[in-house]
Amino acid sequence: MAHRSRLSTFVLDCKTADLHAATEFWARALGRTNQGSPDGDTQYQLLSGSGAEPILLTQSVDHDSRIHLDIEADDQEAEARRLEALGARRIAWVKNWFVMEAPTGQRFCIVRPQRGPLSEKKNATEWP
Amino acid sequence: MAHRSRLSTFVLDCKTADLHAATEFWARALGRTNQGSPDGDTQYQLLSGSGAEPILLTQSVDHDSRIHLDIEADDQEAEARRLEALGARRIAWVKNWFVMEAPTGQRFCIVRPQRGPLSEKKNATEWP
Repeated sequence: MAHRSRLSTFVLDCKTADLHAATEFWARALGRTNQGSPDGDTQYQLLSGSGAEPILLTQSVDHDSRIHLDIEADDQEAEARRLEALGARRIAWVKNWFVMEAPTGQRFCIVRPQRGPLSEKKNATEWP
Repeated sequence: MAHRSRLSTFVLDCKTADLHAATEFWARALGRTNQGSPDGDTQYQLLSGSGAEPILLTQSVDHDSRIHLDIEADDQEAEARRLEALGARRIAWVKNWFVMEAPTGQRFCIVRPQRGPLSEKKNATEWP
């Protein structure tokens, strides 16, 4: 069965107790606006953007600040297997996503489709 | 004097001696192609993408792997001062860009316009 995936999101992981202040900095730095917490999840805040670019989120984290990316997939297990075959490692399943580690060392996540079905979206790739 | 800036690039900093292999992983992971080294600078390789989204680059680095972002500005000194007023710190001038540190801890860069004049581009913000 074929599945589809694409680059979904860049998450600005911020080691802070004040996510609002962190988001205000990044919004002003990037000329965006703070759109608040998506789905009421206060661990995240959304920056404005066009539908043609990856989503930009801030996240409050306990580890050191960094940036990570998410790949959205309509079959997360198939996508994890595809990426393992390319050399990535499966680290954990958290809530509803896989945490992966690239062969180059960066952590990233495989998440569910974030902006509607991938079949209708540009830039999604179908993997046989 | 007003100046303009916008989010330019996400750089996949890879601690590796084999940047080509690192770029092949990220290209295949994200459904992109490796476009080679821009301007012949072998420290970087470019991933394919649409003009509507930030540029994606890989970079060979000596520090631990991470992702950083670049802001492009038509007046880098004015942009550095604007970001300092928001709480960022100026770390260094390297070749032709500023290395900055966000109040949330992530390093990022202020680079020259990467895709033509910012005045003609979407998503650029004019700062008074």
